[in-house]
Amino acid sequence: MRLIIPTLFTTLFTLGCVVAARAEMHTQAIEYQDGNTVLEGYLAYDDSIIKGKRPGVLIVHQWMGLTDYEKKRAEMLAKLGYNVFAVDIYGKGVRPKDTKEAGALAGKYKSDRDLLRRRVAAGLEVLQKQELTDTKRVAAIGYCFGGTTVLELARSGADIAGVVSFHGGLDSPKPEDGKNIKCKVLAMQGADDPFVTAKDMAAFEEELRKAKVDWQLVKFGGAVHGFTQWDAGNDNSKGVAYNEEADKRSWEDMKQFFAEIFQ
Amino acid sequence: MRLIIPTLFTTLFTLGCVVAARAEMHTQAIEYQDGNTVLEGYLAYDDSIIKGKRPGVLIVHQWMGLTDYEKKRAEMLAKLGYNVFAVDIYGKGVRPKDTKEAGALAGKYKSDRDLLRRRVAAGLEVLQKQELTDTKRVAAIGYCFGGTTVLELARSGADIAGVVSFHGGLDSPKPEDGKNIKCKVLAMQGADDPFVTAKDMAAFEEELRKAKVDWQLVKFGGAVHGFTQWDAGNDNSKGVAYNEEADKRSWEDMKQFFAEIFQ
Repeated sequence: MRLIIPTLFTTLFTLGCVVAARAEMHTQAIEYQDGNTVLEGYLAYDDSIIKGKRPGVLIVHQWMGLTDYEKKRAEMLAKLGYNVFAVDIYGKGVRPKDTKEAGALAGKYKSDRDLLRRRVAAGLEVLQKQELTDTKRVAAIGYCFGGTTVLELARSGADIAGVVSFHGGLDSPKPEDGKNIKCKVLAMQGADDPFVTAKDMAAFEEELRKAKVDWQLVKFGGAVHGFTQWDAGNDNSKGVAYNEEADKRSWEDMKQFFAEIFQ
Repeated sequence: MRLIIPTLFTTLFTLGCVVAARAEMHTQAIEYQDGNTVLEGYLAYDDSIIKGKRPGVLIVHQWMGLTDYEKKRAEMLAKLGYNVFAVDIYGKGVRPKDTKEAGALAGKYKSDRDLLRRRVAAGLEVLQKQELTDTKRVAAIGYCFGGTTVLELARSGADIAGVVSFHGGLDSPKPEDGKNIKCKVLAMQGADDPFVTAKDMAAFEEELRKAKVDWQLVKFGGAVHGFTQWDAGNDNSKGVAYNEEADKRSWEDMKQFFAEIFQ
């Protein structure tokens, strides 16, 4: 036994290392269209975590458009065993150069919810058509502007399992569309977010309440807007700041939500 | 190898079964006192999960006093590896016979917060003196009246890691006491709870915000008061009803909170 067991362990260990060496994060840019508009999203999955079909997660970007931030989040989700597609709402190469342009672009889509819904639906279609996506287990998450967008996706009646909004705008020009929501909703907000008013929050709750949606709202004390944005600094007085606790907690809350909806 | 490996597995499996057969949930009633008042709580731990010192969790009962409900929760927590003490606020044998008596008793303590604090502190002392309690890792949870009580424990400045309130009353006659809170706070509410007003909730948030407490608030859509109470029926129109989703989610939220504060 003394001789055999170490040999067995050594063999298994070596085998493990070979498998680990083969582990690969697959990422690729994918071009797709909404009408004549060319969009470019980012797909990520990791075959070392799971083989074959797996739940799909759509990521919608914040107001600066699809950036390295969303790509990093896509890879983090891929490592959790999901097939992930970070969508592009604005169009291939269309990236605001500053917050002024970002505000204008995000504003364009927020004031035309039909267009916003069409753009996110185009991305969802890409995800759902991927070979690796288990189409019965699909969710969408979004940050800031992307949070608003995934809520709008839910309001469009999208046939998905759930949406998660991280510090998203909660307002809706057509709260009666809450009745279309088929999926579960998790919204997470900084309790000191100056961009999401108590009035918006109350209206959001009322929209979901009236429509008998399965929803949850989490408020993080001491967190302002953008609490998941690693590069947002830590000065709450600016209204936008990273908050490590709220970032980690909201990520865990999302994982718990996925564990439930992807059962 | 063919012969040796199965033998090894068989040996380990047999050993595992012997250990499992020895697994025991230890529970016992513990008498203690607050001044001349005799109280009787309920201790639970499970040595099959963990040996030696472990985090301690205090449970505070709802308005009917310490019942089988809290004992069952204590055992559920013991199975998670905690040393658990369900306290008795009312006194040994003092149990309201109906909701009218329960309202009167809970009201007595809610209108005398100093007495309430003393009673819960007496229970905390019992937990902290247990051989198995890792006194640096202690939290308190409570249901309804017990939720109010653990918040009051936090407001008393108790040196514990965190408190979790399940559908607790959030009001405080002395919101300035928020400044005494040293521990992390997680409050979970039914979004349709008729007994916790929007005004109370806003005042609670403001209390914690002003005091710069580390807090989180979770609202469960479609849930009313008592959403964790298995025997509360499912008629939301009564204002108190069991809600399986909210029960399970809040339990997971609590586990996640413990995982963080008991690191």
